[in-house]
Amino acid sequence: MGFLDVVLGRPLRSEEDDAQRVGVAAGVPTFGLDALGSAAYGPEAALTILIPAGMAGIAYVWPISLTILLLLGIVFFSYRQTIDAYPNGGGSYTVAGKNLGETVGLLAAAALMLDYLLDVGVGISTGVGALVSAVPRLGPHTLAICLLILVALTIINLRGVRESGLLFMAPTYVFVVCLLGVLGWGVWKTLMSGGHPHAVVAPPHPEAGRAMAAVGAWLLLRSFASGCTALTGVEAVSNGVRSFREPRTRTAQWTLTVLVVLLALMLAGIGYVVRAYGIEATEPGSKDYQSLLSIITAAVAGRSMVYYTTIASILVVLSLSANTAFAGFPQLCRVIAEDGYLPRFFAIRGRRLVYTEGILVLTVLAGAILVVFGGVTDRLIPLFAIGAFLAFTLSQAGMVAHWQREGGERKWLNIGINGVGAVATGITVVLVLMAKFAEGAWITVVLVPLLILLMQAVHRHYARVEKVTRVGELDLKPRGSLIAVVPVSRWDRPAEGAMRFAYALTEEVEVLHVDCSSEEGETGCEDWRPLVGEAAERAGVSVPTLTTVTSPFRLILKPIVDHVLKVEAEHPERSVAVVVPELVARHWYQYLLHNHRSTALKATLLIRGNGRIAVVNVPWYLEK
Amino acid sequence: MGFLDVVLGRPLRSEEDDAQRVGVAAGVPTFGLDALGSAAYGPEAALTILIPAGMAGIAYVWPISLTILLLLGIVFFSYRQTIDAYPNGGGSYTVAGKNLGETVGLLAAAALMLDYLLDVGVGISTGVGALVSAVPRLGPHTLAICLLILVALTIINLRGVRESGLLFMAPTYVFVVCLLGVLGWGVWKTLMSGGHPHAVVAPPHPEAGRAMAAVGAWLLLRSFASGCTALTGVEAVSNGVRSFREPRTRTAQWTLTVLVVLLALMLAGIGYVVRAYGIEATEPGSKDYQSLLSIITAAVAGRSMVYYTTIASILVVLSLSANTAFAGFPQLCRVIAEDGYLPRFFAIRGRRLVYTEGILVLTVLAGAILVVFGGVTDRLIPLFAIGAFLAFTLSQAGMVAHWQREGGERKWLNIGINGVGAVATGITVVLVLMAKFAEGAWITVVLVPLLILLMQAVHRHYARVEKVTRVGELDLKPRGSLIAVVPVSRWDRPAEGAMRFAYALTEEVEVLHVDCSSEEGETGCEDWRPLVGEAAERAGVSVPTLTTVTSPFRLILKPIVDHVLKVEAEHPERSVAVVVPELVARHWYQYLLHNHRSTALKATLLIRGNGRIAVVNVPWYLEK
Repeated sequence: MGFLDVVLGRPLRSEEDDAQRVGVAAGVPTFGLDALGSAAYGPEAALTILIPAGMAGIAYVWPISLTILLLLGIVFFSYRQTIDAYPNGGGSYTVAGKNLGETVGLLAAAALMLDYLLDVGVGISTGVGALVSAVPRLGPHTLAICLLILVALTIINLRGVRESGLLFMAPTYVFVVCLLGVLGWGVWKTLMSGGHPHAVVAPPHPEAGRAMAAVGAWLLLRSFASGCTALTGVEAVSNGVRSFREPRTRTAQWTLTVLVVLLALMLAGIGYVVRAYGIEATEPGSKDYQSLLSIITAAVAGRSMVYYTTIASILVVLSLSANTAFAGFPQLCRVIAEDGYLPRFFAIRGRRLVYTEGILVLTVLAGAILVVFGGVTDRLIPLFAIGAFLAFTLSQAGMVAHWQREGGERKWLNIGINGVGAVATGITVVLVLMAKFAEGAWITVVLVPLLILLMQAVHRHYARVEKVTRVGELDLKPRGSLIAVVPVSRWDRPAEGAMRFAYALTEEVEVLHVDCSSEEGETGCEDWRPLVGEAAERAGVSVPTLTTVTSPFRLILKPIVDHVLKVEAEHPERSVAVVVPELVARHWYQYLLHNHRSTALKATLLIRGNGRIAVVNVPWYLEK
Repeated sequence: MGFLDVVLGRPLRSEEDDAQRVGVAAGVPTFGLDALGSAAYGPEAALTILIPAGMAGIAYVWPISLTILLLLGIVFFSYRQTIDAYPNGGGSYTVAGKNLGETVGLLAAAALMLDYLLDVGVGISTGVGALVSAVPRLGPHTLAICLLILVALTIINLRGVRESGLLFMAPTYVFVVCLLGVLGWGVWKTLMSGGHPHAVVAPPHPEAGRAMAAVGAWLLLRSFASGCTALTGVEAVSNGVRSFREPRTRTAQWTLTVLVVLLALMLAGIGYVVRAYGIEATEPGSKDYQSLLSIITAAVAGRSMVYYTTIASILVVLSLSANTAFAGFPQLCRVIAEDGYLPRFFAIRGRRLVYTEGILVLTVLAGAILVVFGGVTDRLIPLFAIGAFLAFTLSQAGMVAHWQREGGERKWLNIGINGVGAVATGITVVLVLMAKFAEGAWITVVLVPLLILLMQAVHRHYARVEKVTRVGELDLKPRGSLIAVVPVSRWDRPAEGAMRFAYALTEEVEVLHVDCSSEEGETGCEDWRPLVGEAAERAGVSVPTLTTVTSPFRLILKPIVDHVLKVEAEHPERSVAVVVPELVARHWYQYLLHNHRSTALKATLLIRGNGRIAVVNVPWYLEK
């Protein structure tokens, strides 16, 4: 069992595909960690914006939560239909591309790709950030821990979609049970106490007497825009439909449903408990900072075993939320590559039937982001929700067009739902962009068009190659016979093997010798020239031409290539086979002891040659 | 004019060799910087050992100096004869190898190679060390300055032997004139003052009352052993005889003579002045440290303009003394490589007719030493003289054998001189080894045999290759016709070109398709299979076999190579040509957009193949 077998598992046969697919139970951790994890930062982001308004802001938590829940519902219905209509995956990219045209599809694709990439970078660094604030002495190792998690996620995902799902099942469901339990307990206490529950650990409140800002529309807008990050990750299931067990659309739809219901319960619970307990967010970066879920859990359950279990499970889920990107990104790239807008290698399944190259590209890019930002990616968070909401909008708009074309019995209902969704998420994109433009969202506005241009260029290239390499039937009409040119530096077995092979190809053989010596009249081939001629005569074949070119600057390759090009130009109807003898040593340490002119010559001929020059490599093995 | 033309100069034609040779005037700086520079550290090294003996030790300076001068004279006569007898260079290696056997020659070669390498590392770092002690704020940049000088020396030497000679002429002769001037002035003052000159700047003496060690034999021995480093570098001229202007043996001999006379005058002058002025060395590394030549110059000439000019010229010559190694090492490696004991690339002349690879190997190894030791190579100094003296000894012993065989009118005189020389330098080797064994000289004892074993292994390999690749005449007796195998993944122009080429080679063509799809009955070649067969029928050639191999693990190369090996095994008398179609893109940025299976396939076939499999590469160019 080799090293790769241990790390990545044995290679899987193509037919083993089915066994690698996930059901609902494994699908939720595979595709849902991002969405579920966003419950940990979405509401907190919204509340952080409201800090300046103090307790007055808390009153607006419920309407903001309801708006976000409504959006979630619309997005859910839209993707549910998308899965049904496009069971090959690709999500927003496919929907927008098929219904609104190529460029719109690429817009969705670019937005999603960027979003997935940020998901990995920001997801991991957020989780590690929470871990480091819990265990401060890990601080100096932030970047190392981030990269360690990245590598672990990469390896797990290279082992297959199913593996990550099974592996992350336990932490995911512990998180869900703990958080929903705490929230449910909080709701119960609120109801029992007639709406005024007593907090076990009082939530922190900034000193009295601070200046209160008025609650204005712009503040609420920004709070809503920040809260929308809670919805990221919902699109992942629609990208990876092909990873689900048959009937795959049903399985994917159920997975999406479970995911959205869990997320909605969490968001609603958080909104309710926050208002009931009068919880404010704390300023990130300040010394009193405490995460919102930590305050809530402490208020409801006290600093008990439940508290520590819940907080630990949140940390784990946040750190692993990047797994969603590892499940979605390669599948998205695969669909785009199959359409010819990304390099084809994205569509090749590796040893474990996952799209290896997509996983590795994601790892490298996310690793670069983590290294550049030193493992602290706070400044990237403003970029985060835009990609996802842009994709939501385009996907819904695409579905409107889809229903218009396809009809069906509930045509107008569907158009209505998706139309409202498109408008709502579209407005959200504009709001988020406005609210966060200066903070960094402008980067998205620059990067997305560049990505689109790049993908279009890739497509144009493939289309051109497709066009110029298209060929009807094989044209075997007789052409002039081959001319073989055999470059020989010294007369040895490799050279003899090449000569024999040349005579197997054609009767017209030219032996080419490059003379680098500065002594006059001495070419270095006097001793073997006659041998070759005599042998040809004896064998009754045409005597080879013996050409010597001098090389005053002691170059070897250039004179050979120049001569071959000349021969080719002199015979416009015939092909030239350059028969290159090559001594092949079997051991690496012999590498330094032999020149590698054959290899260099082959490469040079390939680059400088043209359609009628073929290179024949006749190896001669030192070890049998 | 390209970048290389600017940095290295235009390429030189092989016939321009003569213009690149050096005469005596340029030969002294080219090959002599090491020898002349050693006047700066040899006597100081001897005196440093005598420090514990105080002024009592100074009395022994003169006998030690005379012994070293006598050795220098013997070594000089020996190398003068060597140059005459072996005008192709190689020095000790050639003399010892030709007269005392291969292993002894390799012993001399290994010793010399190590000595040259140390010369570069220690030479540069000694010069920079002196510079840094003069300008302390350069201290933190020691390694950077060392590497800068190394790169500068490399480039200058890549430009040709003559360039370095001409460039270094001025500093060399300034150094010689200054130092000999100061020493001559000191001798004159001594004679004028009746043997008791007055020092302009009194030489430093350690505090009185320190414990004086008795002057014993072991102390004198160690002092002598250290002083012998003054002789290193004398062998360089004999290694590079071929770099001298015709008549090259005369020119080389005159260069050696000038060099040795200058060195002898310096050593004698230093010995005389040190005793006359009662100068002691100062402890290296102590805060009162001052170099011996600095003390002497200050004592004789005061801290005048003369002082600063002399000290500056010493710094420059020390820093550049590594140039001797750059002149000698590549020539030495060239001679060894021509004998087959080093990789052949050492014997290839580059664009400026110097042995480029030897220069680069020296740069890389010396750079590694400098980096490992951080630019401070004090700990390597004990290793220094051993290689040189071992080479002296073997060279003299070889000359004894030479005269015994060759005779000549002064046979016995010559044998006498070289015999005495061999014994004297041999004793010196033993003394130096004993005196410095624990300080690091043992490393030489370990490294030299390893180098010899390595060179013998290289020779054995070349000898074996020479033997197994030797071929008498070309055997063109008819063999079975070729079988062509064309791997085709999709039917496009490159594939069609490869098929056409295959039919130009032989009538027996097999098209090989690898089927990676998991769907049953679908192989991916249904659409073009018939086209190929029909075309062959229409053209009246034999219809190609169409073979499909399935690849359950989605590998492409392995099934192809396995199949080709199978075909080859089934036809023990025939050769198999694997005709590989290849789409060649002209732009680097297209690299990612196409797979590189052709390249990988060619490499895999080359490695896994055997004598009867040739690879034919038929390129198809995307850009014409």
